[in-house]
Amino acid sequence: MIPDNIKKLIESFKLLPGIGEKTAERLAFSILDLEKEQISIFSESLIDVYNNTRHCEICNCITDKDNCKICSNNLRDESVLCVVEDSKSVFLFEKIAVYNGRYHVLDGLISPLDGIDPDDIGLSKLVERIEKYKFSEVILAFKPSIEGETTALYIKKILEGLDIKVTKIASGIPMGADIEYMDPLTIERALFDRKDMKG
Amino acid sequence: MIPDNIKKLIESFKLLPGIGEKTAERLAFSILDLEKEQISIFSESLIDVYNNTRHCEICNCITDKDNCKICSNNLRDESVLCVVEDSKSVFLFEKIAVYNGRYHVLDGLISPLDGIDPDDIGLSKLVERIEKYKFSEVILAFKPSIEGETTALYIKKILEGLDIKVTKIASGIPMGADIEYMDPLTIERALFDRKDMKG
Repeated sequence: MIPDNIKKLIESFKLLPGIGEKTAERLAFSILDLEKEQISIFSESLIDVYNNTRHCEICNCITDKDNCKICSNNLRDESVLCVVEDSKSVFLFEKIAVYNGRYHVLDGLISPLDGIDPDDIGLSKLVERIEKYKFSEVILAFKPSIEGETTALYIKKILEGLDIKVTKIASGIPMGADIEYMDPLTIERALFDRKDMKG
Repeated sequence: MIPDNIKKLIESFKLLPGIGEKTAERLAFSILDLEKEQISIFSESLIDVYNNTRHCEICNCITDKDNCKICSNNLRDESVLCVVEDSKSVFLFEKIAVYNGRYHVLDGLISPLDGIDPDDIGLSKLVERIEKYKFSEVILAFKPSIEGETTALYIKKILEGLDIKVTKIASGIPMGADIEYMDPLTIERALFDRKDMKG
């Protein structure tokens, strides 16, 4: 009974995370209340995000330029590298502005149960970058889960031969929670409490 | 820090009801995980829904044809007319399949506080239709709110001169709740318990 074009739009909304049938219907119908200009921008943005989003050649963060804004910014501290599991962590850290160093974005975390091996998360690019530039410290900022701990320990091990301090952000973030949903104070505390993995 | 094209998409998602900053960000980033084909369909559907959705010339329900599927269906009971406040009510009633008559969709409910007068909700088209076709009963199916009650009483009054039974769906639906979110049993009960407004 729902017109076919609206049904199709409902199916599109249902592809998004956390959107079930009811919510997808509500969102699809709400499109009828928007202005023509708003619809055009929405429609074009979807294509634009798909076509023009790439990974920064230096840090692997998603960006709409060849190099991201942080890697292009000469005023950032070049002695510290914060390694994160995805681009969203970078955006969140930048939003709360408690860190002024460089970032490196992995393609996720090591997870043998899901078939994700060290080779799958871009570690060789990380090691290459650390060997090339003289960072004095590498901060590992993963979520405190089995996968986060495994990845941190693995990176600590492959960096053992280099003269570089390896730290990880402190606990304070509950096990299993996503960094994305933490409050700024918890993240600031965790950055402040980072502990030396070699010590 | 978030790339401009993704920021723009976040703003588009924020136009939708119930979508705040955090959810909009999550939805926008999730677009990067979809297939090219899925993005194209999503993008085109938005434009298609905007451009090709119109109101049925008979019942005013939104449709992608000149006349909606119900008005084009000769097998429906032509003696009963169910008047609803929006197209979503029609889709919901059809989904739970407890009614086999005709519908008429108003442009909302009378709400003097919001400046919505009887003239604004398309009542003349409703009266015209009732006068032209020989319905034996008109069922008023609005949400049980001040606006719903006002609209029901107003319609009852303007139909007083005609030889037609005017009923409204029974209580059972809590005051202030939207018909859209009711469970099928409550709606079926309310349809079954409809009471004669002239009696």
